[in-house]
Amino acid sequence: MASTALTFTDRDAHRAWLTRQAQLPAGFRVGTTRFEFMPREAPKPAKMTLTLIALDQPTPDFAALFTRNALPGAPIIVGRQRLHEPTLGAIIVNNKVSNVCAPGGIEASERICSELAKLLGLSAGQILPSSTGVIGWGLPVDAIVSALPQTSAALTGTSILPAAEGIVTTDLYPKIRRAHVGAGSIVGMAKGAGMIEPNLATMLVYVLTDLAVPRAELRAALTRAVETSFNTISVDSDTSTSDTVALVSSGRVPCPDLTAFETALTQVCRDLAEDVVRNGEGVRHVIRVAVSSAATVPLARAIGKAIVNAPLFKCAVAGNDPNVGRLVQAIGKYVGAEAPSTDLSQLKLRLGGIEIFSGGVFQLNPAKEAALVAHLRSAELYASAPPKDGVFTAPIDFPPHERCVEIEVVIGHGTAEAVVIGGDLTHEYVSENADYRS
Amino acid sequence: MASTALTFTDRDAHRAWLTRQAQLPAGFRVGTTRFEFMPREAPKPAKMTLTLIALDQPTPDFAALFTRNALPGAPIIVGRQRLHEPTLGAIIVNNKVSNVCAPGGIEASERICSELAKLLGLSAGQILPSSTGVIGWGLPVDAIVSALPQTSAALTGTSILPAAEGIVTTDLYPKIRRAHVGAGSIVGMAKGAGMIEPNLATMLVYVLTDLAVPRAELRAALTRAVETSFNTISVDSDTSTSDTVALVSSGRVPCPDLTAFETALTQVCRDLAEDVVRNGEGVRHVIRVAVSSAATVPLARAIGKAIVNAPLFKCAVAGNDPNVGRLVQAIGKYVGAEAPSTDLSQLKLRLGGIEIFSGGVFQLNPAKEAALVAHLRSAELYASAPPKDGVFTAPIDFPPHERCVEIEVVIGHGTAEAVVIGGDLTHEYVSENADYRS
Repeated sequence: MASTALTFTDRDAHRAWLTRQAQLPAGFRVGTTRFEFMPREAPKPAKMTLTLIALDQPTPDFAALFTRNALPGAPIIVGRQRLHEPTLGAIIVNNKVSNVCAPGGIEASERICSELAKLLGLSAGQILPSSTGVIGWGLPVDAIVSALPQTSAALTGTSILPAAEGIVTTDLYPKIRRAHVGAGSIVGMAKGAGMIEPNLATMLVYVLTDLAVPRAELRAALTRAVETSFNTISVDSDTSTSDTVALVSSGRVPCPDLTAFETALTQVCRDLAEDVVRNGEGVRHVIRVAVSSAATVPLARAIGKAIVNAPLFKCAVAGNDPNVGRLVQAIGKYVGAEAPSTDLSQLKLRLGGIEIFSGGVFQLNPAKEAALVAHLRSAELYASAPPKDGVFTAPIDFPPHERCVEIEVVIGHGTAEAVVIGGDLTHEYVSENADYRS
Repeated sequence: MASTALTFTDRDAHRAWLTRQAQLPAGFRVGTTRFEFMPREAPKPAKMTLTLIALDQPTPDFAALFTRNALPGAPIIVGRQRLHEPTLGAIIVNNKVSNVCAPGGIEASERICSELAKLLGLSAGQILPSSTGVIGWGLPVDAIVSALPQTSAALTGTSILPAAEGIVTTDLYPKIRRAHVGAGSIVGMAKGAGMIEPNLATMLVYVLTDLAVPRAELRAALTRAVETSFNTISVDSDTSTSDTVALVSSGRVPCPDLTAFETALTQVCRDLAEDVVRNGEGVRHVIRVAVSSAATVPLARAIGKAIVNAPLFKCAVAGNDPNVGRLVQAIGKYVGAEAPSTDLSQLKLRLGGIEIFSGGVFQLNPAKEAALVAHLRSAELYASAPPKDGVFTAPIDFPPHERCVEIEVVIGHGTAEAVVIGGDLTHEYVSENADYRS
């Protein structure tokens, strides 16, 4: 299953499409508030948006997966405990401060849950907290608690769009995807770009559905869907301390077919995963690597990841330079270090459908080189322009969805395959990450 | 053992010091030639330098270590065979074309060895070939063979400096280090920057000594020395298809003490390794990570590598931004994914000697933040300036050796330690690598 191809030609068309995607499933409401606060660790005020997702009735059917980073944020630690609670009633999300390894971080998360619970008639254990933002700063708890009544009062049940906009940080546009199964729907939203959302180092994904799927099946389906969606993307190889993917069912609509549900859920997750990369900071080329005839799926995926994480190859792509030697370097590096028993003698490589490597040697000539350059140029999301102050910024506020650098890696020994999606390494990435806090 | 601290204030002082380091050990001569050729794969001519290192007498005492990349260059494949030969008589090095996975690559390397052998009165098996440069291009064998007589005629036995300059590609300055043991010397030279020499994707290191150390002891000492020198650096995490470290003894001077020899060899390797990072493409901050009280040396080294390879942290350092959350992210990512049983509860972190993390939480405040910024600024090798055409280039041609970002990671469970050296991620790196071939 590939992600869903989209072909927007302007921002308004993208926005109109997003609005149509955004209709909330039955049983959910969302509300947001934005306010200013003074961080303890910094000399000037900052702004935060609180986003509340509330169920009309608490549900036993919810699932969540969290980062594997060994130094996780306080909301991750609290969230893991919430998985054992009988029901979930709401999710409260703040941006700007990630609440990771900050003194009193768990107490801060729990106090916000407890104050919100009073407003919503729930218990603190029924509320899942999420935070995204600067790692190391503490949550401005008093300011957040003061903003809770307004956030709760803002709850409406029409569209997830305000929430998708509320949870973002440096995202260029909100990310929403949906699918239908029978009379029900699955609506997902994402912020950031996972490992590639470097300013705030966090990916948050919330998938809401009105389809009635029991907790055990819901959790198993989410684990499998994430494995072939969010776990197959990487832009800068960094792993957030706050990554969260949550799936909540309001149970309002009978689910006619669990297999159809999982297929639809997987599609929503893959579409959101590609959105996350396509909106990655500084990403000017989305790179899709299809690895086939590998011995195992983990090997296929690891080779794909090695390619999209190789800085030299990423730089070459950024420059529309088909420096395929760097692609071969990336494969050889991974196999030599991690899977030395892999036979690469049948290795075939194609870039933009053009064969560049087979029979153990490169298959290159000046005509192919020109065609490869043309493929890279046609896949560029926007042209980079050096600004006068030296700070590169992406000049787009909607993603040209159809453009993609296509790489095929045929190992030639096995039947396993995997698709991995990543991005290039650009001046825009360095500008966004070399000086954003100051 | 740390690398040797140097404190040059200008290019001329550095050059004078290099010249003093460059005196060849007894029994070696070097010669170089530069010429133009037309690559088969590209539309315009290119320039290449041939560098010849010749022994006055073939020696049985030589050692070499090669890349672990699973798609190595032809000279690596030939070089591995040379390790089984009874003696070595010469090393021939070309830059510009790396001869990796090019059709007929091994035959090309062997023909050059064989033509050179005729000129030197050796057999082809006594010659170690090395190539560095673009991956995917084939060697211009006829042009190289035509240049061999002139290269051989240029052999002189005074200084290694012409060779250290001949093997470079995008290096800003030649890299030479020496040590003495008794009446003998160990002189090493390096080109490139290992994983961080992205244009040409190759690190080449040659260490020459007149000290008589038998082959077995020489090879064992080199393996151990490389483990704590070249294997502890990384700038962009890419692993070259051509990495080579060779050590050759002419045996002219009795070695008074094998332990002293290995200590001196290790010092030369560590000094060259730091030179390689300090001259890494786009490196504006050298980052030294000292990891201590870890359970094992491999764990300590892996945590150090995770830090110097974390793109977000590297970008922060480039911007003189003490975004220590990204440092914690890097440690947590590695431990969570690769060593989840590691206890991080006693983790302590210092940056520039200032404590930033202990007791499970950050130790930050505005005054510390100012001191951290000052440390990063003082460690900057040069100021970055956006040029009018958008292409960033390093404005230095000698390295301020004493400047370094100092990071201490205390795990708190064990006695193992390791030092890892890396660099930041800058606009200069992206400029050099996003468009160099065209």
